[in-house]
Amino acid sequence: MSMASTNNHSCKKPAKVTADDFAYSGLGIAGNTSNIIKAAVTPAFDAQFAGLNGLGISVACLDLAAGGVIPLHTHPGASELLVVIEGRILAGFISSATLSTSKLLGDVMAFPQGLLHFQINAGKSSALTIVRFSSSNPGLQILDFALFKSSFPTPLIVQTTFIDVALVKKLKGVLGGSG
Amino acid sequence: MSMASTNNHSCKKPAKVTADDFAYSGLGIAGNTSNIIKAAVTPAFDAQFAGLNGLGISVACLDLAAGGVIPLHTHPGASELLVVIEGRILAGFISSATLSTSKLLGDVMAFPQGLLHFQINAGKSSALTIVRFSSSNPGLQILDFALFKSSFPTPLIVQTTFIDVALVKKLKGVLGGSG
Amino acid sequence: MSMASTNNHSCKKPAKVTADDFAYSGLGIAGNTSNIIKAAVTPAFDAQFAGLNGLGISVACLDLAAGGVIPLHTHPGASELLVVIEGRILAGFISSATLSTSKLLGDVMAFPQGLLHFQINAGKSSALTIVRFSSSNPGLQILDFALFKSSFPTPLIVQTTFIDVALVKKLKGVLGGSG
Amino acid sequence: MSMASTNNHSCKKPAKVTADDFAYSGLGIAGNTSNIIKAAVTPAFDAQFAGLNGLGISVACLDLAAGGVIPLHTHPGASELLVVIEGRILAGFISSATLSTSKLLGDVMAFPQGLLHFQINAGKSSALTIVRFSSSNPGLQILDFALFKSSFPTPLIVQTTFIDVALVKKLKGVLGGSG
Amino acid sequence: MSMASTNNHSCKKPAKVTADDFAYSGLGIAGNTSNIIKAAVTPAFDAQFAGLNGLGISVACLDLAAGGVIPLHTHPGASELLVVIEGRILAGFISSATLSTSKLLGDVMAFPQGLLHFQINAGKSSALTIVRFSSSNPGLQILDFALFKSSFPTPLIVQTTFIDVALVKKLKGVLGGSG
Amino acid sequence: MSMASTNNHSCKKPAKVTADDFAYSGLGIAGNTSNIIKAAVTPAFDAQFAGLNGLGISVACLDLAAGGVIPLHTHPGASELLVVIEGRILAGFISSATLSTSKLLGDVMAFPQGLLHFQINAGKSSALTIVRFSSSNPGLQILDFALFKSSFPTPLIVQTTFIDVALVKKLKGVLGGSG
Repeated sequence: MSMASTNNHSCKKPAKVTADDFAYSGLGIAGNTSNIIKAAVTPAFDAQFAGLNGLGISVACLDLAAGGVIPLHTHPGASELLVVIEGRILAGFISSATLSTSKLLGDVMAFPQGLLHFQINAGKSSALTIVRFSSSNPGLQILDFALFKSSFPTPLIVQTTFIDVALVKKLKGVLGGSG
Repeated sequence: MSMASTNNHSCKKPAKVTADDFAYSGLGIAGNTSNIIKAAVTPAFDAQFAGLNGLGISVACLDLAAGGVIPLHTHPGASELLVVIEGRILAGFISSATLSTSKLLGDVMAFPQGLLHFQINAGKSSALTIVRFSSSNPGLQILDFALFKSSFPTPLIVQTTFIDVALVKKLKGVLGGSG
Repeated sequence: MSMASTNNHSCKKPAKVTADDFAYSGLGIAGNTSNIIKAAVTPAFDAQFAGLNGLGISVACLDLAAGGVIPLHTHPGASELLVVIEGRILAGFISSATLSTSKLLGDVMAFPQGLLHFQINAGKSSALTIVRFSSSNPGLQILDFALFKSSFPTPLIVQTTFIDVALVKKLKGVLGGSG
Repeated sequence: MSMASTNNHSCKKPAKVTADDFAYSGLGIAGNTSNIIKAAVTPAFDAQFAGLNGLGISVACLDLAAGGVIPLHTHPGASELLVVIEGRILAGFISSATLSTSKLLGDVMAFPQGLLHFQINAGKSSALTIVRFSSSNPGLQILDFALFKSSFPTPLIVQTTFIDVALVKKLKGVLGGSG
Repeated sequence: MSMASTNNHSCKKPAKVTADDFAYSGLGIAGNTSNIIKAAVTPAFDAQFAGLNGLGISVACLDLAAGGVIPLHTHPGASELLVVIEGRILAGFISSATLSTSKLLGDVMAFPQGLLHFQINAGKSSALTIVRFSSSNPGLQILDFALFKSSFPTPLIVQTTFIDVALVKKLKGVLGGSG
Repeated sequence: MSMASTNNHSCKKPAKVTADDFAYSGLGIAGNTSNIIKAAVTPAFDAQFAGLNGLGISVACLDLAAGGVIPLHTHPGASELLVVIEGRILAGFISSATLSTSKLLGDVMAFPQGLLHFQINAGKSSALTIVRFSSSNPGLQILDFALFKSSFPTPLIVQTTFIDVALVKKLKGVLGGSG
C-alpha cells in the first residue's frame, strides 16, 4: 500500500472528493408555514444531501408558527432526537395502549423508531426545533396524510379504523385524498 | 480447544440445552375471535418462546372469523411476511400519501417494517394466516388502540389527527380509553 | 419536503410500486414429492419474490410425502422457524458433539443459523410445514448434495470425512456426483 | 396476546416508563468557555441521557467563544452531523494524506466515522453549534489530550509521531500530561 | 463533559483497564498433533481472550503435522481468512452441489460464513496457518464430530444422510459417539 | 427449487466462481522497508482481494526492519488483531487521556476500532506481524501523514493541535506536505 492513507466512506475517488460533498446549506432558509398545519419540515436526508450516504444519520428543521402542529406520524427506519432552538414545544409519542407520553420541553426529547409521535407549538410565537435521525433515510408516514391524502379506499379506512364514513370523506375533502 | 465442537447460540451451557428449548406448542390452540374485531392474534415472540432470543425471527397466528379484521397497525421493529393457510384474506399497507396497496390473496404478502397495514377476512367463513417477523420482538402498535384504548389526552388527539372530538370520545367509550 | 410522505423500502419510485410487488403466489402449488427423498422444498426467497429485498425475511413450504425426509442441511445466512400445518414432523439440529436435539412436533421449532438440521415425516400420511428465515436469502447447503451430487473430488471427501471410498462412490452414483 | 399493544424499546416495564425517561434538560445551560481552548462540549450521550440506550443516536452542544477551537479529534464509534445555530464556524476533516477539507459554514457539515476533524469559531463573537452522532455512545479522542494530557510515555510519542522531545514536554506541561 | 476523553469499548472503567486486557499469549505454544487427525486447533476466541468482546474478530492457529487434516467443518457465525505461515496447505470449501473449490496455497484463502470447508497438509513436513474470523465467537461444527462423536441417534443419521448403518457404527466406534 | 443447493455469498453466478476468486498471493512477497519508517504495510483489503467483499474481514502483513516503526494511526472502520510471527514487537493504543497501553508481545494484541495505536520493532533484527481487521475495508489514517504529508493548511494545524509553526513546517518538509 506504500503507506498511502485511505478512507472507507467515499464512493467518489479520494482525489475527486471536495469539501462541498460533506456540506449542505438547505437548512438555512426558514420553512413556509402558511399551510393547514402552520408548520414546515425542511429535511436534509440523503435525497437532499448525498454526502450522508453511508453515515447513518440525517437532520431536519421543524418550523412551527403560532398554533403550528406536526401531526401524528412515524419514521419507519429511524429513531429521532429533537432539540428545541427557539420557542416552546409540546411533544410526545404513544408507546402502548395504556401509556401517553407528552411533555413541555425546553430542550431534548427522544422518539423511538417506528412509534407514533407529534410536535405542537406550545407557545405564543413561532418555534424552531432541529431533529436528527439514526439513519440517512428515516422515512416519514404522517397518519392523516396516509389515510386522508391518499387513494386508500374509504370503505377500507372505515373497516380498519372504525372512523365513521362522514369524517373520512370530510377529511379526504380537506386534505385532497381520493378513493 | 482439543477440537471440541462449540456453537454460539445458547446462553444455557450446551450440556443443559434440551430439545424443549427450541420448540413451542402455543400456536396449536385456535385463537378466541369472540371480540369486537372478530379476530385473534396468537404470538410466539421471544416473550412467549425464549428459544427465539438472538435468532432474529418470530411468528404469530392470525385467526379471523367471518367479518374479522386486524385493524391498521405497525410493527416498529420488523418486516412481516404473511402466508394464507385457510380462507381468503384482503390485506394491504399504506406506503405513501398517494399510494394504497391492497390485494386479495391466496398466498403470500410482505409488509415493510414500520408501515401501517391491515388484514381483513374477505371470505364467508373463518380464515387463518401465519405471519412471521424479521425480529424476535417485532413490537405492535394498533392505531385504534394507541389512540382510543389509551390515556392519550383527547385534546391532543384532536389537535394532532383532525379527528373530531365527538368521534374520539365515542371510540374511547367503545374501546375503553381515558384522558 | 412540503410534508409529502416518503418511505424507505422501495427501489422503484413510489408512483410505480403496485400491490403486486409485495405479493407472491408461488407457494399455492403443492411440491412434487416423487423423488428420492419423497419431499419438496418450494422457496419464496428474494430470487423468486423480489419484493423481499431489504426486508430481512423469507419463506418456504416443505411438502413431505409418507416417508419423506429433508436430509441434513444448513442455511449459512439465516435462522429458521418451522410451523407444522399438517401431519406430524420429527425435526432436530445438532448443536454440539455431545448433544442431539430431536423432537416430535405439533407446532413450532427453531433452528439456529448455520447448524446442521433435518426434518422427517413422522406420520403415516403426507405432511406440510412452512418455514421462514431471518434473511431474504438464507442460502441452503444440503450435506449429501454438497458431498455426493457435486464434483468435489472423491479422495478429498474420503480424507476430510473418513467415509470410505466405496460408499462415496455408491452415493455419487445414486445422486449424480462426479469427481 | 389479547391484542394488547407492545413496544420493543424500553427496558423498564411499559407501565413504569414516563415522559421523563425520554426527555433531557442538560443542553439548556451554556457551556463554560473560560479555558485554554475557549470552548465547551456539553454532551447528551447515553451516560447523561439513559433514554438514548438502544436508539442509535446522541447529541452535544458546542459553545465556542471568540477565538474558540475544538481541537483535532475523532469519534471512534459514530459519524457526526453539525448544524450551526449561531455565529460562523470553520470546520473540516482530514480524509487522506493529500486531501484537506475545510469550509466556512452557515449550516450543515458531515464528518465520517473515525476521521480526524476540528471546529473553529470563524467569527468575531461567540458561536453555537449542535452536533449529533449516529450512536448513543460515539466516543471522543482529542488528539492533543491523547498525546499530551495522558501518561503515554514521551519517548514513545517522539518515536511514533516525529514530534520533537522539547515540544512534547512543553505541551505535556501546558495540558498536564505525565510520562 | 469538561473535554475529558472517553472511549466506548471497555466494560471495565477506563482507570482499571490495563495493557494485559488486550494482549493474549496462548497462541505461542505449538498445538499437540498426536491425534487421529494429526492436527491441532488453538483458538483465541472470546472464551479464551476476553478483550475481544465487542471487537468482532478472533484468531486461531492450526498446526498440521505431516498427513494432518482439519476435517470438513463450518463456522455458523463467521467468515474465515487463512494465511499460511509455514508449509503447504490444500484447502477448499463446497459452495454448491456442482462446484468444488480447492487450491494449493502459498498464502491466503477466504471461506464464506457457514459453508463446509477443510484444510489438509499438502507437504512432507509440518505446516502452520493462522486463521482469523469476522466474529469474536465464530462457532465450530466439525461434520464428523457432529455425526459420529455425538449422541445423535444412528437411525436418524442413516435416514438423513444415506450413510449406511455399518459405517455409522464403525465411525461412532472410532470417534466415541453413542446413540 | 428442485432441491438445488445455493449459497448467498457470490456476486458471480455459482457456475462462474472458481477457487481463484477466494485465494490471494500478494502477501508472500516481503515488504520494502527502505524508507523513513523502516517498515512496510502489505494489505489484502477488498481493493486488492475482491473475494473479501461481503465477508467482513481482511488482512495485512507488517514488515519492520531493525528500528522500524508503524507511526500512530487509526482504522476508522475496523478493530484489529495482531499476531507476531517473527521478532519482538512493542505495540499499544491510547484509550483515554489518562491511560497509556503498551506491551512487549510474543503473540497477540487487540486494537479497538478508531483508537490511535502504533507498532514498534523492539528487537535487534527484523520483525514480521500479521494483522487482521473486522472489515474488508478497514481504512487507515496515519497521524503524521494526515497532518504533514497532506495539503491541510499549516495555520489550521497549528490552531487545532498547538504544535508550533516551525515544527509543522519542518515535518511537512520531511514528509512532503504542502499548504
